[in-house]
Amino acid sequence: MSGYVPGEQLIGTNIIKINSNENPYPPSPLVLAALRNLDGELLRRYPEPMAGRFRTAVSAALDLPSDWIIVGNGSDELLGVITRACTSPQRQIVCPMPTYVLYRTLAQIQDAEFVEIPYDDNYNLPLEEIIAANGAVTFIASPHSPSGTVVPLDLLDKLAAQLQSILVIDEAYVDFAAEDALELAKKHNNVIILRTLSKGYSLAGIRLGFAVANPALIAGLMKVKDSYNVDAIACIVGVAALQDQAHKNANAEKIKTSRATLASELQKLNFDVCPSQANFLLARSPHGNAEYLYHSLKTRGILVRYFPQPRLEDKLRITVGTDEQNAQLVKALAEIMG
Amino acid sequence: MSGYVPGEQLIGTNIIKINSNENPYPPSPLVLAALRNLDGELLRRYPEPMAGRFRTAVSAALDLPSDWIIVGNGSDELLGVITRACTSPQRQIVCPMPTYVLYRTLAQIQDAEFVEIPYDDNYNLPLEEIIAANGAVTFIASPHSPSGTVVPLDLLDKLAAQLQSILVIDEAYVDFAAEDALELAKKHNNVIILRTLSKGYSLAGIRLGFAVANPALIAGLMKVKDSYNVDAIACIVGVAALQDQAHKNANAEKIKTSRATLASELQKLNFDVCPSQANFLLARSPHGNAEYLYHSLKTRGILVRYFPQPRLEDKLRITVGTDEQNAQLVKALAEIMG
Repeated sequence: MSGYVPGEQLIGTNIIKINSNENPYPPSPLVLAALRNLDGELLRRYPEPMAGRFRTAVSAALDLPSDWIIVGNGSDELLGVITRACTSPQRQIVCPMPTYVLYRTLAQIQDAEFVEIPYDDNYNLPLEEIIAANGAVTFIASPHSPSGTVVPLDLLDKLAAQLQSILVIDEAYVDFAAEDALELAKKHNNVIILRTLSKGYSLAGIRLGFAVANPALIAGLMKVKDSYNVDAIACIVGVAALQDQAHKNANAEKIKTSRATLASELQKLNFDVCPSQANFLLARSPHGNAEYLYHSLKTRGILVRYFPQPRLEDKLRITVGTDEQNAQLVKALAEIMG
Repeated sequence: MSGYVPGEQLIGTNIIKINSNENPYPPSPLVLAALRNLDGELLRRYPEPMAGRFRTAVSAALDLPSDWIIVGNGSDELLGVITRACTSPQRQIVCPMPTYVLYRTLAQIQDAEFVEIPYDDNYNLPLEEIIAANGAVTFIASPHSPSGTVVPLDLLDKLAAQLQSILVIDEAYVDFAAEDALELAKKHNNVIILRTLSKGYSLAGIRLGFAVANPALIAGLMKVKDSYNVDAIACIVGVAALQDQAHKNANAEKIKTSRATLASELQKLNFDVCPSQANFLLARSPHGNAEYLYHSLKTRGILVRYFPQPRLEDKLRITVGTDEQNAQLVKALAEIMG
């Protein structure tokens, strides 16, 4: 098998890096203040095994008891924990496709069969086919990557009710969406909601995510995670970030406004743009020559994401940057496309 | 299955916490300085997928090319990565016993058979039995936990030469030992050496460990790890810690001196003490009543480690603390034992 290939991380001056869906704005000033005031004892001692302080902060923010929450070294780690806890060579993983590539990588690591059910071209959820496939775990990203589309709550609700097994709703991009699926974890005992601080909270550099599910499911996942899976500094940083909802929300609003502007500018260049509730846009180039555009942008110091795979090879996934970055992208595309 | 149960993490004033083999001395002042000068951009962006800067620092410290090194979210994560990469229900894990309890937990998570080969009472390596067992992976902790004993290099060398499969030498406690097994990774292409910054470098709070092996093995492990498994802040902290070898070595020397004193004091109380090259001592209580001593110490605010399992239930594992902490422990034991 080949491993998951993450987005390129070119670092240089003047690089416009809009390929990994990082937030273009810095995290809350409370975060840097927390780092500057860090108690050195936190470094010397093992961290809390359940990331207690951060878990308590999540519990307060979501108004849910702590035993509904498991904290991970990024939501990627929790995807691995769920895969290890719930699958085996006999128990398959089901995903509507295309989707976040890591789901398949994790299935391969566990030798679990990976069942792909295609979305239609408008990314409508293939509900009946997913139910019929009856996987041990079904992974659905909503908002979806790479399209940015959202599965309506009533469809997710139906799916959770009819599946006999675990439904993971990966809400990595929920901070940029109009609604969230948290209530489904309360309503259905087979639903796991995944969240990350990488996107809305501008904290991709520290690895911090969490999952919400009923306490019996969470207890099962706890057995599989590494005992000290979350860094003590990350927990302190995460608590500070959660305390500044206003900062996170203000950045999300800016990004949503910029998203609408960028979508409109891309449409003027005859791109076909998926309706996105995430901090990125999936855009089909008018001539289908996405790979050429990707390389041309790269030579100009603009890094976007190109997926050389069926149904995506004519599209670019573009992270919504600052208005200035977005304008430079549009200008470069206009020049390249003559 | 039941999960791995980590050492208790009671936090309070005046608690003497000598149960988790944490270093009693703070990390290098360079570490706190690095945290205070942190570039906020590191928080917003994804970290380097291979922990590049830290990997380069390890490469320089060990005088080995970078492609001999994989960095993990603690060496615990790397144990998981190795287990997932190398085992399956048909491919077993072999461990001389007793040993670090996590090895068995990881085998259970992968449904891999776990073959236990007993050490003798002096913790001599059962070399021939391990070779005959022929596991897909053999885990050996050296210095060993919970005894603190070391397997002589020539025995490890023989074992590596005769095994047809992977030999993992877990050197979590090597900073307190007289020699290390790094040369065996260079000599044998089936040897993986595991190291952590939790013990010698006083950085248990951040999760940072690494493995050393030939590049082909490392490349295989890279495929299995999460793509962004190591926190950007942890990497910065780790680089600073590696730059101050003098600080780490001075603390290790203090601990080794304290270890000798503590062993001698425990022997005066008629404890039977294993010869330790780690930062802890495994001590058999003269009346075999280790559980009683554990509880009695706990009521006095002194936390040591007690393992309620065959061959260990008459012993305590005691982390070497500061001289003052060790003296308080000895005083408390003398009082309890009348």
